[in-house]
Amino acid sequence: MELKLGFIGFGNVARAFSRVLAERRSFLSREYGLELKTTAIATSNHGCVLSATGFDLVKAAELSEQGLSLTNLTDSLPVPDPLAVIERCDVDVLFETTTLNVVDAQPAINHIKAALNRGIHVVTANKGPIAFAFNELTTLAAKNNRCFFFEGTVMDGTPVFNLVERCLPATRVLEFSGILNSTSNLILTRMESGLSFEDALSEAQSRGIAEANADYDIDGWDAAMKAVVLTNVLMGGQAHPSQVTRQGIRNVTARDLNEAARSGKSIRQIARSARTSEGIEITVLLEEVPAASALGSVRGTSNVLLLETDLMGEIGIVENDPGVEQTAYALLSDLLRIRESVAPPD
Amino acid sequence: MELKLGFIGFGNVARAFSRVLAERRSFLSREYGLELKTTAIATSNHGCVLSATGFDLVKAAELSEQGLSLTNLTDSLPVPDPLAVIERCDVDVLFETTTLNVVDAQPAINHIKAALNRGIHVVTANKGPIAFAFNELTTLAAKNNRCFFFEGTVMDGTPVFNLVERCLPATRVLEFSGILNSTSNLILTRMESGLSFEDALSEAQSRGIAEANADYDIDGWDAAMKAVVLTNVLMGGQAHPSQVTRQGIRNVTARDLNEAARSGKSIRQIARSARTSEGIEITVLLEEVPAASALGSVRGTSNVLLLETDLMGEIGIVENDPGVEQTAYALLSDLLRIRESVAPPD
Repeated sequence: MELKLGFIGFGNVARAFSRVLAERRSFLSREYGLELKTTAIATSNHGCVLSATGFDLVKAAELSEQGLSLTNLTDSLPVPDPLAVIERCDVDVLFETTTLNVVDAQPAINHIKAALNRGIHVVTANKGPIAFAFNELTTLAAKNNRCFFFEGTVMDGTPVFNLVERCLPATRVLEFSGILNSTSNLILTRMESGLSFEDALSEAQSRGIAEANADYDIDGWDAAMKAVVLTNVLMGGQAHPSQVTRQGIRNVTARDLNEAARSGKSIRQIARSARTSEGIEITVLLEEVPAASALGSVRGTSNVLLLETDLMGEIGIVENDPGVEQTAYALLSDLLRIRESVAPPD
Repeated sequence: MELKLGFIGFGNVARAFSRVLAERRSFLSREYGLELKTTAIATSNHGCVLSATGFDLVKAAELSEQGLSLTNLTDSLPVPDPLAVIERCDVDVLFETTTLNVVDAQPAINHIKAALNRGIHVVTANKGPIAFAFNELTTLAAKNNRCFFFEGTVMDGTPVFNLVERCLPATRVLEFSGILNSTSNLILTRMESGLSFEDALSEAQSRGIAEANADYDIDGWDAAMKAVVLTNVLMGGQAHPSQVTRQGIRNVTARDLNEAARSGKSIRQIARSARTSEGIEITVLLEEVPAASALGSVRGTSNVLLLETDLMGEIGIVENDPGVEQTAYALLSDLLRIRESVAPPD
């Protein structure tokens, strides 16, 4: 089966995914009968291009990393902007990986709508559209009988949505808590080891862990968005990002961390969502937790999500030391789920 | 859709599952279109019975708990033994939950074979058959075009096999480590808090956590069996329980635990499986690990499994404070997977 792919946004994640696809080409053909061809790429700074014959994705990644225009690719047809790409492309699956807009998640929402309306399956690693428009977008996908997957929006490729949907049937998620922002957790745990806030932040940025705008991480926006996504998808909530009680990590001092450590505690930025008599309450707050606990033991860029359920008690899922490869894996796992949904296994 | 159920073994787990089915009857009918009828129950001490009209499962659980024979159930037809039940019953799904036999996993393996050969789907929470005969049983199930699921054999209802099979496509498990035996972990962590070995063991037994024969837990047999199951299912191994290097917790002293604690460590019984030049090496050993780590922070009856993978790095799954309800959930999730496989969702 041939699937034609398109990319809206071609940053770190999409480029890492491109390399995985190139490395695993024969594996994907052999194990999944998948032949992939990329016929559309839209970027904000390196051009928007279409191709009838299919791009060399590794070459595209290299050009983009060198700051060169994708119009240098063989057989590329330039088009004016991402929406024009979506309207004119011939693709089966579109990967939306533009950067987070915390105000209204645009233009990503419009990209996804345009693609679904054209009958294109959509995969996104952008949490904005799910935080702001989950119900609208899933309804639109169902109406068009297309897949809309977003495993990469929380904890990279670690199965979170798939875990609940595919492995916890008949189970209701009552509440959750988690460490969801790698940059903040890296900074807090590096500061525990004696680094300054600034040096720890530099490390996150040089490793490509921090969001394009690191303020989103540090001020708790990223964790808040993810908490809203989890609330709306896993708990059937109708939450909006503006209702999250949100606390960033800017004011944590080495002294705070040392004092906590002396009593066997760690300070962590913890996202929580719980049902109250007033509805669902979502918070992203600094908390002192026992160092030897499921939350306190999570160090560096690692993440954890603890789900309190009705039938299965509390289960947790942990992602240890993720890098951009793990987000790339989210796109691959969503692609393979589309493959399965288009032609179910015997 | 009506599914007729049978039980071979009707201990704590099967009885807890019976109560879940009774409590969720209308939910399962509404959400999954499932109408369930139990037409066969085999026990070692309370009789083996068939029914054409279907048993009252809650009544059956009560009789069994009162030490009374199941032949007291309305419309019950007594048969001599479990194999006779399997040969003569009219069921679609058989739940094999007899107790663990660490020598050769019999008679459970024969029960499962007999059922699959009669075209009956099988669910088991008994790790013996998977540790000793995984390949043979899955081959037999495939030949008969029947489901054979066993999510409850490791970490109760926490998705372990489903996680890897359904949520980590294209991923290879390279190695794993985990805390897999609740009784041992409860004893170690209670001893850390000052309890004696004997009092901690009594607690595990009174809570129904310990295996019928607690020696299997304490001497590491249970964890070893689970490690073999994980190795063979998740890593494509061909391991046999006899090859596990196994260390129990009998000789751990309060002094050992206190000394570890003074340097920020915890002693845990850790199961590991890793690929070496000699093949796959499986161990269940006492290890000193940092208290504030994914392994060291797991306390009481909680379990954890850390999977090192090729494409997704390291991910972990945690089950916090499980009881028998969580093992009952494993049977439910396997039943719902059979439901899905018999009639896939639209």
